[in-house]
Amino acid sequence: MKLWGSRFSTALDPLAAKFNNSIDFDRRLWDQDIRGSAAWARGLTRAGVITSGEADELCRGLQRVWAEFNGGTFKFVPGDEDIHTAVERRLSEIAGPVAGKLHTGRSRNDQVATDFRLWVMEAIDGARGRIRGVQAALLAQAEALFGVMLPGYTHLQRAQPILFSHWLMSHFWALERDRERLVQSRQRASTLPLGSGALAGTAFPIDRERLARDLGFAGVSPNSLDAVSDRDFAAEFLFDAALLASHLSRLAESLILYSSLEFGFLELADSFATGSSLMPQKKNPDVLELTRGKAGTLIGLLTGLLATLKGLPSAYDKDLQEDKPPVFAAFDTLEAMLPVLAGAIATMTVKPDRMKAALDAGMLATDLADGLVGRGVPFREAHGIAGRAVRRAIEVGVPLDELPLAEWQSLSPAFDESPGDVFDFDKALARRNAIGGTAPEAVKAQLAEARRVLGGG
Amino acid sequence: MKLWGSRFSTALDPLAAKFNNSIDFDRRLWDQDIRGSAAWARGLTRAGVITSGEADELCRGLQRVWAEFNGGTFKFVPGDEDIHTAVERRLSEIAGPVAGKLHTGRSRNDQVATDFRLWVMEAIDGARGRIRGVQAALLAQAEALFGVMLPGYTHLQRAQPILFSHWLMSHFWALERDRERLVQSRQRASTLPLGSGALAGTAFPIDRERLARDLGFAGVSPNSLDAVSDRDFAAEFLFDAALLASHLSRLAESLILYSSLEFGFLELADSFATGSSLMPQKKNPDVLELTRGKAGTLIGLLTGLLATLKGLPSAYDKDLQEDKPPVFAAFDTLEAMLPVLAGAIATMTVKPDRMKAALDAGMLATDLADGLVGRGVPFREAHGIAGRAVRRAIEVGVPLDELPLAEWQSLSPAFDESPGDVFDFDKALARRNAIGGTAPEAVKAQLAEARRVLGGG
Amino acid sequence: MKLWGSRFSTALDPLAAKFNNSIDFDRRLWDQDIRGSAAWARGLTRAGVITSGEADELCRGLQRVWAEFNGGTFKFVPGDEDIHTAVERRLSEIAGPVAGKLHTGRSRNDQVATDFRLWVMEAIDGARGRIRGVQAALLAQAEALFGVMLPGYTHLQRAQPILFSHWLMSHFWALERDRERLVQSRQRASTLPLGSGALAGTAFPIDRERLARDLGFAGVSPNSLDAVSDRDFAAEFLFDAALLASHLSRLAESLILYSSLEFGFLELADSFATGSSLMPQKKNPDVLELTRGKAGTLIGLLTGLLATLKGLPSAYDKDLQEDKPPVFAAFDTLEAMLPVLAGAIATMTVKPDRMKAALDAGMLATDLADGLVGRGVPFREAHGIAGRAVRRAIEVGVPLDELPLAEWQSLSPAFDESPGDVFDFDKALARRNAIGGTAPEAVKAQLAEARRVLGGG
Amino acid sequence: MKLWGSRFSTALDPLAAKFNNSIDFDRRLWDQDIRGSAAWARGLTRAGVITSGEADELCRGLQRVWAEFNGGTFKFVPGDEDIHTAVERRLSEIAGPVAGKLHTGRSRNDQVATDFRLWVMEAIDGARGRIRGVQAALLAQAEALFGVMLPGYTHLQRAQPILFSHWLMSHFWALERDRERLVQSRQRASTLPLGSGALAGTAFPIDRERLARDLGFAGVSPNSLDAVSDRDFAAEFLFDAALLASHLSRLAESLILYSSLEFGFLELADSFATGSSLMPQKKNPDVLELTRGKAGTLIGLLTGLLATLKGLPSAYDKDLQEDKPPVFAAFDTLEAMLPVLAGAIATMTVKPDRMKAALDAGMLATDLADGLVGRGVPFREAHGIAGRAVRRAIEVGVPLDELPLAEWQSLSPAFDESPGDVFDFDKALARRNAIGGTAPEAVKAQLAEARRVLGGG
Repeated sequence: MKLWGSRFSTALDPLAAKFNNSIDFDRRLWDQDIRGSAAWARGLTRAGVITSGEADELCRGLQRVWAEFNGGTFKFVPGDEDIHTAVERRLSEIAGPVAGKLHTGRSRNDQVATDFRLWVMEAIDGARGRIRGVQAALLAQAEALFGVMLPGYTHLQRAQPILFSHWLMSHFWALERDRERLVQSRQRASTLPLGSGALAGTAFPIDRERLARDLGFAGVSPNSLDAVSDRDFAAEFLFDAALLASHLSRLAESLILYSSLEFGFLELADSFATGSSLMPQKKNPDVLELTRGKAGTLIGLLTGLLATLKGLPSAYDKDLQEDKPPVFAAFDTLEAMLPVLAGAIATMTVKPDRMKAALDAGMLATDLADGLVGRGVPFREAHGIAGRAVRRAIEVGVPLDELPLAEWQSLSPAFDESPGDVFDFDKALARRNAIGGTAPEAVKAQLAEARRVLGGG
Repeated sequence: MKLWGSRFSTALDPLAAKFNNSIDFDRRLWDQDIRGSAAWARGLTRAGVITSGEADELCRGLQRVWAEFNGGTFKFVPGDEDIHTAVERRLSEIAGPVAGKLHTGRSRNDQVATDFRLWVMEAIDGARGRIRGVQAALLAQAEALFGVMLPGYTHLQRAQPILFSHWLMSHFWALERDRERLVQSRQRASTLPLGSGALAGTAFPIDRERLARDLGFAGVSPNSLDAVSDRDFAAEFLFDAALLASHLSRLAESLILYSSLEFGFLELADSFATGSSLMPQKKNPDVLELTRGKAGTLIGLLTGLLATLKGLPSAYDKDLQEDKPPVFAAFDTLEAMLPVLAGAIATMTVKPDRMKAALDAGMLATDLADGLVGRGVPFREAHGIAGRAVRRAIEVGVPLDELPLAEWQSLSPAFDESPGDVFDFDKALARRNAIGGTAPEAVKAQLAEARRVLGGG
Repeated sequence: MKLWGSRFSTALDPLAAKFNNSIDFDRRLWDQDIRGSAAWARGLTRAGVITSGEADELCRGLQRVWAEFNGGTFKFVPGDEDIHTAVERRLSEIAGPVAGKLHTGRSRNDQVATDFRLWVMEAIDGARGRIRGVQAALLAQAEALFGVMLPGYTHLQRAQPILFSHWLMSHFWALERDRERLVQSRQRASTLPLGSGALAGTAFPIDRERLARDLGFAGVSPNSLDAVSDRDFAAEFLFDAALLASHLSRLAESLILYSSLEFGFLELADSFATGSSLMPQKKNPDVLELTRGKAGTLIGLLTGLLATLKGLPSAYDKDLQEDKPPVFAAFDTLEAMLPVLAGAIATMTVKPDRMKAALDAGMLATDLADGLVGRGVPFREAHGIAGRAVRRAIEVGVPLDELPLAEWQSLSPAFDESPGDVFDFDKALARRNAIGGTAPEAVKAQLAEARRVLGGG
Repeated sequence: MKLWGSRFSTALDPLAAKFNNSIDFDRRLWDQDIRGSAAWARGLTRAGVITSGEADELCRGLQRVWAEFNGGTFKFVPGDEDIHTAVERRLSEIAGPVAGKLHTGRSRNDQVATDFRLWVMEAIDGARGRIRGVQAALLAQAEALFGVMLPGYTHLQRAQPILFSHWLMSHFWALERDRERLVQSRQRASTLPLGSGALAGTAFPIDRERLARDLGFAGVSPNSLDAVSDRDFAAEFLFDAALLASHLSRLAESLILYSSLEFGFLELADSFATGSSLMPQKKNPDVLELTRGKAGTLIGLLTGLLATLKGLPSAYDKDLQEDKPPVFAAFDTLEAMLPVLAGAIATMTVKPDRMKAALDAGMLATDLADGLVGRGVPFREAHGIAGRAVRRAIEVGVPLDELPLAEWQSLSPAFDESPGDVFDFDKALARRNAIGGTAPEAVKAQLAEARRVLGGG
């Protein structure tokens, strides 16, 4: 069965047919396609196009097709060029001639846009839950390890001491923005195209708002031309996914570094690490590296769709068929990646001693300068003095906090005594107590807020 | 003047300095940087770090620096590696030693993030207004040309008749989504990083929420590490711009086609067309082609930033300096492109006769099938009959509506008479009256809604 | 069977294993993997690591594994994490303990790089042949339709008359550059990594140059660290594919335009066109639109890999596993797309009358100016006169060649008579006879050269 | 002065003109444009279109325009929409009416393609030299530090010991491929478009091959339509640049890691490092981070151009004007980045002691397994034994080479004595002596080959 062809004198070339068909990937929309068709049948009845009895027959038939898909017994046949054809073909086998009434007033253009939007809306729901899983793992570790201190880095150079919980939470908030973006993208996706026909609107008096409610859409598309060609929702999902993946790649990069022997701050569980076929001693963070690498792949998926959309003329063009593979691929990647990352975080062993050992007095040079500010030295000058102290300590070959008093005094008369009390990591942390700072008190507030956010789903 | 360097034994290599400096592009943030510094000075006073008199001195000095920038008299000097250095250097020349107190408790990491967010928030406000300009031009033409009919295309083949106003509005709604995305991106950008220090939070008791209000931010960042490295707002702006540009590229593509001699549906005003250095007769739609081409460029800007962000370790890394040139370039492109497109639309001459002449009876084959549905023929069968009628008309060599009655009857017994009344374009349009359809009544509702939307800003 | 794991206390988490495994896509390398292993076995013998008899056993076993794959009877089992594991696992079942000697001195890092390079080399050979198919179709049409004239366009505005053969050949030469690039990429891919171990080189005295010859590589990698991490060949293939696809997208775009009713220059065969589920009259160039759209997808595949490679540390990282899916996807796309495009070109119907009817005298305004140059008027001035003539003809409402003599003379005294002889399309063509021009003679030379190029393969 | 416009009734809208103009960036082609024009004047003389005296006048005038550009005294005026207009406008001021003869038989379409190809050819020459500079710095360090040993990493975990020279050279060879690609891209760019007119070829008997020789092109374009629209050379340059940058980003990433305190393998010179405005102790590898980050930006430039090219119709379209900014930006980035990287490498301080201290016996587990192979144990089994030994050493809490004999014997009867002699780093290195291995002898051969390659330019 074909949904078209009576005006053509010859059949489609087999290679062209294979090239043209989308069934290899759009079969994934079977559930949405069938639900959409059932709602359409009811809509046709309300519009007076088919009888209520015909709609019942169609819906019973569609229910049987659905059950076949759901049970894994649906059989595709060679002519099934796409999921719409496959479903209607099978429906006609089950329900007979009445099946021929289902496509009245509808086009595959508005049909596929409806199916795909439904799918993306549900994919977003799934992805949001998976993100929560990673956030929960981060938060659990942040709570369990509260108080553990490690160097904070900028430019991969030791900068200032921070709480490890603070570090974990920095990734939590990035993921929270991802969830928020996905919520907004879902809202925009939740606009019903069905009833737009091929491009000009349906010629039957369909109550599209009722149809939208039946299918779980928040509203209806305001323009039929736009409705059949709008793929913003696909591009948005790919962007959300790529930016999310970039956040995960940054988390992964840090975890890779921290689990190197050189940093030694943490170790992945054996159940989340892999070995080498040649080197027996290796324990590799493959899952983190894949997370990092897949961020690149997801950027490519987004780029590809945007490039495909660029420069198309109005309304539906077949180029739009390229919209689904990248969205499916991005979703599958997130589905696989997020739980693994959550697992790796939940099971990793953190080494507070190694973290603490990596702190050195030089990391408090800012506090040294701040201390001078407290004695009335302008910060810019205090910064210079502290910098020279660092350099002097390197020259002398001692840690910054062991520089002799004479050295301090030659650096600035403000040092009437050794600034020894500055070099206290706990006090340094406690000072950073403005909102969002690494002070234990401020981090506790963060944890409470995060707990609240997660509670809200 | 340098903001750092006392721990170094030698100066930065001149080539490395040139490579490192960002002043060539971040000078554009002068206004935001100075406003941010003034607010910081007040914040330091409230925190008890500097006196109210010192803050006054700083603010007066900053006001003078601002005036120099605003008046175009600010002089950069070789050591001004970035806008922060330039402003503080000049401030110290004007205000003397007190200038050295301004940078207390602050880092360029939180400073630049603050400046850049402010800039992006204001850029979004500008872009939204420019988009409105294009929307207004589309709507004005849609209202002025109400009733004009032309072929609607799918696959660039004539599909069904539509109103030209409907076609214009299809682009209006795509732009409306762009505006909505920008509003949401602005909300997310509106989070203050200032007070996050280099990475760990400021060590002084700054009231960050007050600071946020003073600078026009909706909230404060919840985590200092995240605050200094979060560039989501830049990536979002680039995505919004790229998707907007893809919408404009589709509009441009169609206008290019429609202004070809072959379509002949419209003609650009001479003031929005260009000629050839070799071929005297040419009148070219360069501005539309540039609009199409720049969509590609904007995709590249987004891709570039995402690739740059991928795989960075936590907190601030210098790679992030690559965030500004693409955002500035994208904004400038929108600023140049949107008003030109608005102008081209507002001034183009539409040719209703050419549009009407391109309609042919074959475009109502769907209505022919729908008519059979009205006589009880299932749509799938009716579609087949209509398709065979199209083919038969080609074979016979007549327009579809001139196929003899005998031919009709040999195609289906349902044709007890020639389906002549089907081939009425006005009636075909009027039937597509569900929400979003091309029926005049439905389009009128669209125009009213669009007018309402534009009124709301 | 696992190739690693004895140092681990627990098994890999099932989700992590699924995420980590590459067998779903790298199984495609079975042929290359087995050939590589057989060559390696021989290399180990020559190096004195295993006996000749052991190598025979290994090769016989590998031959059986190969036959299973080739016959479609190979059974994967759950532990087969990648193709290397699957092959070695099966080999050990077939050949017994000797199988455990095969991986001596080798790592999956050099093994997979070898397999993948072999695959890409062969993929390039395939792609080059497919490109030839399109070139041959273009050339055949160019020869068959020699003499047919149509408007040449710039900015999609009629510019100057050209031969349709000339237009067809413009796409031929772009494809020839694609073939040349692929040849060079293949040469660079043809460098053997095997014998590089995991990163540091193999610890056994393998004759790598002999190994390269045995496997069909042109040379051996000069540095083992580089050898296991170099993915230039994959990126190059993706670039070659993306640029090729961009050429095809431009060809497709033009064919879509030319097969619109508005241009009407050609019609696709029914066997390369598709219909609509709603609109019975439609005949759509779906295969051309997909060709255009897939160019976007291929750009994304390239971008994705480059983003993945960016910023990796030295030597092998698991991120590199993301190299294969895009290369496989790009190759499959080319394999499907190129023959369909060749078929569409070979079977399309060209309409010389419609092409000719689209020529108008205004397209010879350049020749009008050139004619004035022949009478001593500087070109810049002549261009101005011709431009004013075009405008005057529009104002008067006549074709350019029907402007009355009085009008000509008021434009320039150089018109002592009407420039009627200028408006001869054949002569205009014949004048463009420099190499690469559209004159029939020059195009004939092009065709001869193209024939020669295709002959050379 | 405008090169077109006589057919237009109104001037271009000022915003449209600004949007349309390319003079802001294509002014950079002044040198190529003038040289191309001089060659064209000579070509017109040989074709009998202008006299030899006229050509002399034109060339003298062009020489003066050149001198003005070269001396920085050229003044642009508002009407200069592009470099071609600017040069011809100024020429007409200098040389009078004869200037109006220069553009005979030529279009800006073939002119700009010629200018831009010349520019890219010269840019490639420059970039190749800059790459050599980095290669030379790598080689010099590799020679100076010959013998220094450090851990080789895979997955950022210590894998096997290697020579630091070997590591340095791994980056040398990647850059060598970049140079090779640029050479091939230059050869393809070296095809003259001039003489193709706007699209159809020039109508005058120009000797294009002579013109090509005069301008330094290797050949002439075979098809005028292709010639004016082919931007492969720009895309190739951007790809070459992006892949080169990805190589540099990997080098930079490693150097950033190695210069962290945690690795501590090297330290940048003070003249190639930067400090912090807040933290006085910081010494940051900004130039390396920018190198890493700019790889992302360059990926975006490539993507952007490819997306712009996608789907254009045949011949010249204004979209192509978007080709220059990304090429200029990519070149400028390389020009700035490569010398800085060379300088950073040449001046960095390497710390052999820290490198050596990072080696541990576990990194020789492969050699342990290889040793068992020497005693007849199949590698797969030997790998398992070695892995269990690693795990046992962790459990016992001793380095692998200090595991007691009893432990060894319980692991395998093949250990008749402790495998102590395996744990010799020098011997382990020396064994990896196949071509490309890290054995000192093999690395010496690499250095000799590299020296030869650099000598060859």
